[in-house]
Amino acid sequence: MSLQQWVRPEILAMAGYVPGEQPAPGRSFIKLNTNENPYPPPRPVLEAIAANADQRLRLYPEPSSRPVREAAARAYGLHPDHVVAGNGSDDLLTMILRTFVGPGERVAAPGPTYSLYPELTHLQGGVYVESPWLAEGGLPVAALAEHRAKVTFVTRPNAPTGHVVPLSQVAELCQATAAFGVVVLDEAYVDFAEDHGLGLLVDHPNLLVTRSFSKSFCLAGLRIGLGFMSAELAGQMHKVRDSYNLDRLAQAAAEAALGRLDLYAPLWEAVRLERRRVSEALRQRGFTVGESQANFVLAAIPPGRLDGAGWTGELKNAGILVRYFAADPRLRDRIRITIGLPEEMDRLLDAVDGLLAGSR
Amino acid sequence: MSLQQWVRPEILAMAGYVPGEQPAPGRSFIKLNTNENPYPPPRPVLEAIAANADQRLRLYPEPSSRPVREAAARAYGLHPDHVVAGNGSDDLLTMILRTFVGPGERVAAPGPTYSLYPELTHLQGGVYVESPWLAEGGLPVAALAEHRAKVTFVTRPNAPTGHVVPLSQVAELCQATAAFGVVVLDEAYVDFAEDHGLGLLVDHPNLLVTRSFSKSFCLAGLRIGLGFMSAELAGQMHKVRDSYNLDRLAQAAAEAALGRLDLYAPLWEAVRLERRRVSEALRQRGFTVGESQANFVLAAIPPGRLDGAGWTGELKNAGILVRYFAADPRLRDRIRITIGLPEEMDRLLDAVDGLLAGSR
Repeated sequence: MSLQQWVRPEILAMAGYVPGEQPAPGRSFIKLNTNENPYPPPRPVLEAIAANADQRLRLYPEPSSRPVREAAARAYGLHPDHVVAGNGSDDLLTMILRTFVGPGERVAAPGPTYSLYPELTHLQGGVYVESPWLAEGGLPVAALAEHRAKVTFVTRPNAPTGHVVPLSQVAELCQATAAFGVVVLDEAYVDFAEDHGLGLLVDHPNLLVTRSFSKSFCLAGLRIGLGFMSAELAGQMHKVRDSYNLDRLAQAAAEAALGRLDLYAPLWEAVRLERRRVSEALRQRGFTVGESQANFVLAAIPPGRLDGAGWTGELKNAGILVRYFAADPRLRDRIRITIGLPEEMDRLLDAVDGLLAGSR
Repeated sequence: MSLQQWVRPEILAMAGYVPGEQPAPGRSFIKLNTNENPYPPPRPVLEAIAANADQRLRLYPEPSSRPVREAAARAYGLHPDHVVAGNGSDDLLTMILRTFVGPGERVAAPGPTYSLYPELTHLQGGVYVESPWLAEGGLPVAALAEHRAKVTFVTRPNAPTGHVVPLSQVAELCQATAAFGVVVLDEAYVDFAEDHGLGLLVDHPNLLVTRSFSKSFCLAGLRIGLGFMSAELAGQMHKVRDSYNLDRLAQAAAEAALGRLDLYAPLWEAVRLERRRVSEALRQRGFTVGESQANFVLAAIPPGRLDGAGWTGELKNAGILVRYFAADPRLRDRIRITIGLPEEMDRLLDAVDGLLAGSR
């Protein structure tokens, strides 16, 4: 084999992104490791899928997911030309990198944040630079702008911390970077938060907002994401998009889901309530838990015999999967816990109690 | 707007790939323009989709489509490590370009061929070079090798001509390019042909073979493609792949389809029979129709008042969509016609008769 002669050096040098564990069918875990929604998709969404799973699957889908973009425009008060649909929001992030970032150009983000950004940057031959969050989680606007990056990411709520920055700081960042690049406001978790940034699009032509159906819409299994931006930027993104990137069933589900936000709102509120309960219960048990507006909490473990890896392993032994970020030294003493059903979180708290008792 | 400051110049310069027309719901066309299969997916495939369209959609799919890769390995006599699954074979082509082609590097193909290859090359900042097919459609091995391309495409059966080159010529090309690049044998249409190239993988470590479920598997609506290659190259491709690129329902359908090739074989044979009948019928009407092994024919129109664009427009007026390649001067006098149901092809031939009578 002559991999070096064939494969791009950037790819050979990469380790590749590793998503959270997806247990094989058979073993039953309480799955609190990849921020899925604990509730099933609402019935009308499943019915829309069933109604489209017929002989029409022999035909290509609508190339640009127009019915989805129209439903999104109705739901969020925009025009369909402002919406680009992705095969999951990861597909949108890939399109964004390919549209804006050439070899050697910079991509910036505050850190720690979503660990896929550097991978996508390296795929594109770009240079990833990080500026630490300010004290109290504020957005380091000046430091980020100094990188003069083609793309600057802001994840809001942030992963894996769950915290949000004020929208005014996102607006400042858009202004500070407009001369050389775009800002991507990654709102994968925003439906669990108190506000969102779509309103910033009006004043900031260098802003793109991305959303995911994998968390708040209970549809991680169908791969649907949305991007919002000016019609002019959307036109460039469509050139980069695979011709038929969303399949017929994903389009049917997304259109149905966007038409029934009323059925999702109670699910989002249930997650918020449970997030508050679990945050407080973990604090009472000695964990340090920041204020999260996402469907997960990042918990710093209390002093004791177990470190973050140890807690993750012991919880797995107890049948509960949580996420540990071994690669980031700033996160070594933390575990990220997805908010599941109340009974699942009770099981988690029981397991935590057992491990704390055993470690005394 | 400051598109120039934000968007990569390669993207600004592109027109973007335009797929064949997908008519809006409501108007009923005989759709012979995008090489879909005229038959519905077999019942067990639709049942597999229905059986998975439930609350599990809240969970992410298996990231690497392992059940699909295992089913493909069983169906084709390979190991799952030799298989990479794509969100349509276009997703695989994108992954291939991103794995192997850096800025300024060359991508080669005989021409005319699939018009997406230059678009994908330009997205990657690469240089697309074409060598004409030899007389009688032979593969220009020496001319292609002279380009020293990182990726050389061979579409077999070719689109839009439908012709096949001998597998021995593909093997020669692999040897002639191994010192500097890979060969991609694009077998999107191979199930309608007389033989395939998977057997070449054993002797040619720089070969990748791609397949599509959009034509022979009656599943264009679900976006499924497969790539076959050495385990080592597959490992590099997985780094470039989106983490969860195939959704749960596409995976369920693909696994079911690969387990029931017996149900597909009669559909492929029916298309072959109809292809022969239509080719002959068009020849009798004055068209020049080459030998096709795909699910379409490329027909050079007889002399008369209508050119290729005229024929395409008149057939559309008659309710029949065919494909015309306005951008390629070599194809200006040709139309590509997908093989549909026998009754649809009868309607086509009737319309052809009408237009021929009118043009006398």
